[in-house]
Amino acid sequence: MAISEQKQSFQLHLQDLTNRNASFLETIYALANGHLGVRASNPLQGNLRLDEGMPGLFVNGFYDLSHITYGESYAGYPENNQTIAQLPDPRYLVIEVDGERSDQTTFATRVVDKNLDMETGLLNELFEITTPSGKILQLSLSTFASQADDGIYCVSYTIRPINFSGAVKLYKQHPYIDQVFTRDGDIRAVSRNNILDRQFLNADFPAMQITTQRSQLGLVLMWRYLGEDSLVKFDRSDGMPKYVMDLDLQQGLAESFDFGYSVGRIHSLMDVAMNHTQYLKNANAHLEHHSFSTLFTESAHKMQEFWHNSDIRIDGDPETQKGIRFNLFHLHQSAGHDGKTSIPAKGLTGAGYEGHYFWDTEMFMLPAFIYTDPQMARALLTYRYHTLDEARRQARDFGLDGGAMFAWRTINGMEASPYFPAGLAAVHINADIAYAVAEYVQVTDDQDFLVKMGFELILETARFWQRFGSFGIDGPQGGKFVINKVTGPDEYSAMVNNNYYTNRMAQHNLRLAVSYAKQLKKSHPSKLEELGVTEKELQSFTHIADSMYVPFDKELGVKMQDDGAFNMEIWPFDQTPRDNYPLLLHYHPMRLYRHQVNKQADTLMSDLLFPADQDIEQLKRDFDYYEPLTTHDSSLSRPIFSILAHRILAHHKAYRYIAESILTDLNNS
Amino acid sequence: MAISEQKQSFQLHLQDLTNRNASFLETIYALANGHLGVRASNPLQGNLRLDEGMPGLFVNGFYDLSHITYGESYAGYPENNQTIAQLPDPRYLVIEVDGERSDQTTFATRVVDKNLDMETGLLNELFEITTPSGKILQLSLSTFASQADDGIYCVSYTIRPINFSGAVKLYKQHPYIDQVFTRDGDIRAVSRNNILDRQFLNADFPAMQITTQRSQLGLVLMWRYLGEDSLVKFDRSDGMPKYVMDLDLQQGLAESFDFGYSVGRIHSLMDVAMNHTQYLKNANAHLEHHSFSTLFTESAHKMQEFWHNSDIRIDGDPETQKGIRFNLFHLHQSAGHDGKTSIPAKGLTGAGYEGHYFWDTEMFMLPAFIYTDPQMARALLTYRYHTLDEARRQARDFGLDGGAMFAWRTINGMEASPYFPAGLAAVHINADIAYAVAEYVQVTDDQDFLVKMGFELILETARFWQRFGSFGIDGPQGGKFVINKVTGPDEYSAMVNNNYYTNRMAQHNLRLAVSYAKQLKKSHPSKLEELGVTEKELQSFTHIADSMYVPFDKELGVKMQDDGAFNMEIWPFDQTPRDNYPLLLHYHPMRLYRHQVNKQADTLMSDLLFPADQDIEQLKRDFDYYEPLTTHDSSLSRPIFSILAHRILAHHKAYRYIAESILTDLNNS
Repeated sequence: MAISEQKQSFQLHLQDLTNRNASFLETIYALANGHLGVRASNPLQGNLRLDEGMPGLFVNGFYDLSHITYGESYAGYPENNQTIAQLPDPRYLVIEVDGERSDQTTFATRVVDKNLDMETGLLNELFEITTPSGKILQLSLSTFASQADDGIYCVSYTIRPINFSGAVKLYKQHPYIDQVFTRDGDIRAVSRNNILDRQFLNADFPAMQITTQRSQLGLVLMWRYLGEDSLVKFDRSDGMPKYVMDLDLQQGLAESFDFGYSVGRIHSLMDVAMNHTQYLKNANAHLEHHSFSTLFTESAHKMQEFWHNSDIRIDGDPETQKGIRFNLFHLHQSAGHDGKTSIPAKGLTGAGYEGHYFWDTEMFMLPAFIYTDPQMARALLTYRYHTLDEARRQARDFGLDGGAMFAWRTINGMEASPYFPAGLAAVHINADIAYAVAEYVQVTDDQDFLVKMGFELILETARFWQRFGSFGIDGPQGGKFVINKVTGPDEYSAMVNNNYYTNRMAQHNLRLAVSYAKQLKKSHPSKLEELGVTEKELQSFTHIADSMYVPFDKELGVKMQDDGAFNMEIWPFDQTPRDNYPLLLHYHPMRLYRHQVNKQADTLMSDLLFPADQDIEQLKRDFDYYEPLTTHDSSLSRPIFSILAHRILAHHKAYRYIAESILTDLNNS
Repeated sequence: MAISEQKQSFQLHLQDLTNRNASFLETIYALANGHLGVRASNPLQGNLRLDEGMPGLFVNGFYDLSHITYGESYAGYPENNQTIAQLPDPRYLVIEVDGERSDQTTFATRVVDKNLDMETGLLNELFEITTPSGKILQLSLSTFASQADDGIYCVSYTIRPINFSGAVKLYKQHPYIDQVFTRDGDIRAVSRNNILDRQFLNADFPAMQITTQRSQLGLVLMWRYLGEDSLVKFDRSDGMPKYVMDLDLQQGLAESFDFGYSVGRIHSLMDVAMNHTQYLKNANAHLEHHSFSTLFTESAHKMQEFWHNSDIRIDGDPETQKGIRFNLFHLHQSAGHDGKTSIPAKGLTGAGYEGHYFWDTEMFMLPAFIYTDPQMARALLTYRYHTLDEARRQARDFGLDGGAMFAWRTINGMEASPYFPAGLAAVHINADIAYAVAEYVQVTDDQDFLVKMGFELILETARFWQRFGSFGIDGPQGGKFVINKVTGPDEYSAMVNNNYYTNRMAQHNLRLAVSYAKQLKKSHPSKLEELGVTEKELQSFTHIADSMYVPFDKELGVKMQDDGAFNMEIWPFDQTPRDNYPLLLHYHPMRLYRHQVNKQADTLMSDLLFPADQDIEQLKRDFDYYEPLTTHDSSLSRPIFSILAHRILAHHKAYRYIAESILTDLNNS
């Protein structure tokens, strides 16, 4: 591929996309940096309830609680939703022409063009704005979320009157402050309506302290003009701190204004209330005396460092090349790196999945960081360590006298899934975390992490399995270690006994504990003592691991997803209209559970992670059995199928799966 | 036992009860007649939110809908709660002394005495009332719900000033009208607040049309003075129709006033709105020219008829004698007999379980009627037939191309359980209904019912099993008919494969269909044609029944509750504090599901219903296995254990179980 083509494939241009839905576009072009994320919405929308998009700023880990209402509530159910907060859109601009204001009457906004330069992280957009009286303005935005300083987001506006000359007034203000709202009933996008509290702070630029009501968190948000044009005036006369630009524009001539936003760290409400003066000072220091271009240069430099370490080049397939870069770009910009946050399932592009962290981090995203950015990988695992006490509490609440039971979906470490068959029951997350820790340590040899955090994570999850499972007495499970009533990766089966993947991963988890304990016994014996590890405990781990039951159908020679899985009817795929996928949006869960149908790779995940477990023939049988049953209704499915197809030398299929997977977001499939 | 002792055991006197909690007492002493039920509450409470009871009139099958909010909602979930409506308490009385009114300031009300004469159905109560200014009145109530005319409820008040002479004013009015409310502050608890609509009707007595908002039902409710005292005046001058009694009482001397209530049938809102004049006329005809004593005599006569047919005498154990009569009394007064209603799980004593009908009717209560009141039994089965179309719709919605799938809990025939693992998944209800139909037909030889309704119920449920189950391919289930992911009677296990009871009952259901089809083929061949029964279908039923898989542990020689049941850990009973029963209120369902612990008889229900299935040794093994695992957290459990204990000649145990069971309500255990 020529250099220009390679350059080209760093550009995500509007013409690359067929879907022009506003919500889709603002998500695809969202910019983030692990701490903050901003949707690329209509800059005039603000909190107007247009039928367009959902503009907003999202801060990783900044959430509020809301009470969960159950149809029928039972003991031990989570009490609260945790929902990432939707903060004011920093792209927001109010335009006033002829006494008409865009926050009072709707100005028509047409997207003319968008282009994201993934190489530097700069997003350029061009809008055509028509006032109710027919005056046309061209508005272009250049924006970036700083990769050099994760508190910073900058926006540069250029405004040009097309069919008139005259007075135009601009306002940079945020009169509204909202919690997440959604428009539809899609269960994957839950809607909450907590109100955030806002307090303007005393400064010569607009600044506010934003706090949540129930989670009691706070942060400081400020913005300032990055330039020296005296036309831009700070004004707080009416109690609403803002910048006002009173312009006299000439037809065809443009004026530009740059603004920088600084979003502080998350603190407790009490802390931020007491120390906001200091925090505001800190925030301001990141922006004061900086220009858009100096800030951008720093950020772009970091972005280029990222590409230097992480780029994947695919020759001969420009679409896939662009796609993989898009994926890498989002992966990079979504990952929390402060050890207190992780990667929300939808990145920092909005409130999808409520900004929660799942096993997606450890099993699907972490490996990329382990090999390209070990510091980030360590930060992500540190987040889990940070929630270890909460996981211990969960285990005690569940009646286990030892070990840790991690939340299936969470921000603050507490379980936030209101539907336990696809929540708490997905206990494989505990082994996933242990697996990820070992993978990290193995690749990086970060002994410091192992001793300080990693071993404890592996040990406490091993202790969980020891207590959560038990020895069977009946049938082929008799005398074997069984793990009952769990949900594996495939959420179209739930509350099953002996999910293959779960049991195999638990076995691995137990063995990891034994093996690292042996290692630490030599290097850091005090650590074992501190954690109360005894020889007897390790022997028990070994015994359980050796006794672990995994279901297998001898006649078919196939690893069985769980006890009884093969006695379910095959899902009637031929009677399932194409529009009824993903199935979970169209069929009662009990109907899905009663059939052999996979949302995503499940048993095959085990084949993937433990290549030494099976020869190529076994892998083929497993693959051939599960492939026709799998709907890939989760985006976590196709990549696994691709890798395994590759292993069984089905290269064409492998390529198709990975290509589809890479383009999932861009094609909105 | 002497006759006086026998008489005595028809009296339920306050001194028989140790629990004096207001809510408990008003439930125990509730009076009903299958159509209406009235709680024996403080007659001055009305809609005052005292911390006492929940007064109200409940009409069987008169419910409103309310939207169900789910923590996480999925396709196919029920949209609405169905909740029995709470209508104005007909016992309600307002007393005015010295300008102070009992509906404006709280008058202290002390329960002095209560006695229910179960032989006639008359409830006598004595209250001592103290006004805020210290005047004391004795108020006694005699009430009955007519067993002769189920629209009628009568109340006789006797009032006597104890420490004063002077003016006392009484009002019989119902200024409030409420849907069910609960006091529980926990907003997760089921609480509905639909407002009923009320419209006063034009008459020379107080009358109203009451309609629900979302279910669009209506009925006419009226009351009139049953006497000729000119002191009792009808008054509608202020828009609130009422009776006013302006009395001048002499210390120690009593005055009495009798009132009759007539509660019309349930109609559609439209119907009742158009025809309320006629319905009111009908209602009034039941009361006009009647006195309390003539109405009571008719009712008592019917009550005696009931005892004549249904009494159970237990000599030598007066407590149990009284208990069984109390049970019979409530059974009789709770059963809907119009073919459109059934028996709410808590009778007509309140809004517990929202007034829903469960399998309790067919499997636990119907047998009593089959043997003592076949007409009532037929009416109860007619209710199910009445909901058959809804059950067919449910089956189609669930993807089955034939058969009927009855709601687990319902009033109107639609599923109203918001938690499907203990709702829709309890599909055994379909076989329960078929079993009950056959039991009824076998005992009564009601061929008319069989042809008109019974066979269709059996056939459509057999068709359900044929489609809902499937043939297994793996393990001992290979080649056998399996029924996956269901919940049996024991709700401490859920979503299991091959629940013994369910499979055995389904097998019975299929065989019943074949056997009755063969019978009807001779007597009513056109019926088979009408229902599209083919020889091939019957052969399929037989084949499936013959192939039905039932799990059995060969080593233990015990019928296994479900696949994998015996590979669960035994519940840690020794670590379970006594206060933590019933377990479902204290432990996460997933914890219960992962253990061998039974809420109630499950597999043993099969042993009970199919005595020919096992010899006494097998029964003993089953009994001995399950008994220690069973908490009897459901009142449906001990009776089963009692009968089976009797069969294995454990007479002492049998007696203990049945005695505990009989006294469940009276001891509030």
